[in-house]
Amino acid sequence: MKIAVLGTGDVGRQLASKLVALGHEVTLGSRSADHAGATAWAAEHDAAHGTFAAAAAGAELVVNATGGLVSLAALEAAGAENLAGKVVVDVSNPLDFSAGFPPAVQTPDGGSLAEQIQRTFPEARVVKTLNTMTNTVMVEPARVPGDHVVFVCGDDEEAKLTVTELLASFGWPAARIVDLGDLSGARGTELLLPLWLRLMGTLGTGDFNFGILKA
Amino acid sequence: MKIAVLGTGDVGRQLASKLVALGHEVTLGSRSADHAGATAWAAEHDAAHGTFAAAAAGAELVVNATGGLVSLAALEAAGAENLAGKVVVDVSNPLDFSAGFPPAVQTPDGGSLAEQIQRTFPEARVVKTLNTMTNTVMVEPARVPGDHVVFVCGDDEEAKLTVTELLASFGWPAARIVDLGDLSGARGTELLLPLWLRLMGTLGTGDFNFGILKA
Repeated sequence: MKIAVLGTGDVGRQLASKLVALGHEVTLGSRSADHAGATAWAAEHDAAHGTFAAAAAGAELVVNATGGLVSLAALEAAGAENLAGKVVVDVSNPLDFSAGFPPAVQTPDGGSLAEQIQRTFPEARVVKTLNTMTNTVMVEPARVPGDHVVFVCGDDEEAKLTVTELLASFGWPAARIVDLGDLSGARGTELLLPLWLRLMGTLGTGDFNFGILKA
Repeated sequence: MKIAVLGTGDVGRQLASKLVALGHEVTLGSRSADHAGATAWAAEHDAAHGTFAAAAAGAELVVNATGGLVSLAALEAAGAENLAGKVVVDVSNPLDFSAGFPPAVQTPDGGSLAEQIQRTFPEARVVKTLNTMTNTVMVEPARVPGDHVVFVCGDDEEAKLTVTELLASFGWPAARIVDLGDLSGARGTELLLPLWLRLMGTLGTGDFNFGILKA
């Protein structure tokens, strides 16, 4: 599949590298066409890089791995016309570090960033997933033993199915992909970040994940 | 131990009943001395009931099981002098249902309700715990198989130890009592509620809990 990964941070590069390894045609998107990190990554992985708009224009599926507070701007730069009809996988977290650590989670209009993205780009098919764990676990779930989970939610069932298949190709067993229903489920997963960050501090590592145990 | 449980809802009655079963001297506290539910519970359990103030005055340890949005008022009614020096176990959640379901989580001054309680009653020794699961699991963790966890946080180490011992007496193994450090850890556990409520909806039951799996 032709996939644009928007965002050149750890999360974006990790996801883009995994997608390349799985045989997808990946373009890493950044603010400018000559972004040093994106250029280096593309050379190393024999993949493409470009502006947010160029990356999204050529893609069938778009991953938003930009920082949550700049995601709307990045997607505006990508262009609504380049997102229309496409699955947009939102893995970002609206963390506000302006008052230091720990960051506050922004809740746009009392909801989630994912819903705000969906409202702003109504023709995109937004699916929220993977934002509740560190990037190494995202693409290699087996590095954490046991039945930990990944959450998925979105308003478009077909888009959610596409993302579920992508997660399965990452190594996520079907039983551990938890469908939270429509996109408002992102309110729960985005607000999980304060606990995740706290645990990272007390455990001394981000190499963990949540499980759900049932009676 | 002489324990006051403030709040006569499901959570308060469940905790009070467990504490009675464990041999503690329990007083169920409510707004008025003649609260019908509290009177009935006390008769059934051969225990005591009374106003928030009467319950707290006679107690060595106070459990706040009132609704999060009325907790400060309930604790004011209990009286700062009746909380001073005592362990106050806060199991409440600041859920605002004024706009319907799902509720919003209030974050007083950008923090947690537990911290707000601690600031308001500086001589109380506030420990946050048990607010991330349904009341039946709180007092009988074994009803959910597997290594699910309970979080504990607070500024007073000795108070946290008292609460940890209480949790152990409920059936929580030491390895599954996760110490999140000081009371600001409550920001994480209080904001877990939107995900908990969502999962209750999608799983069709509140009879579950979270686990933490490490690499």
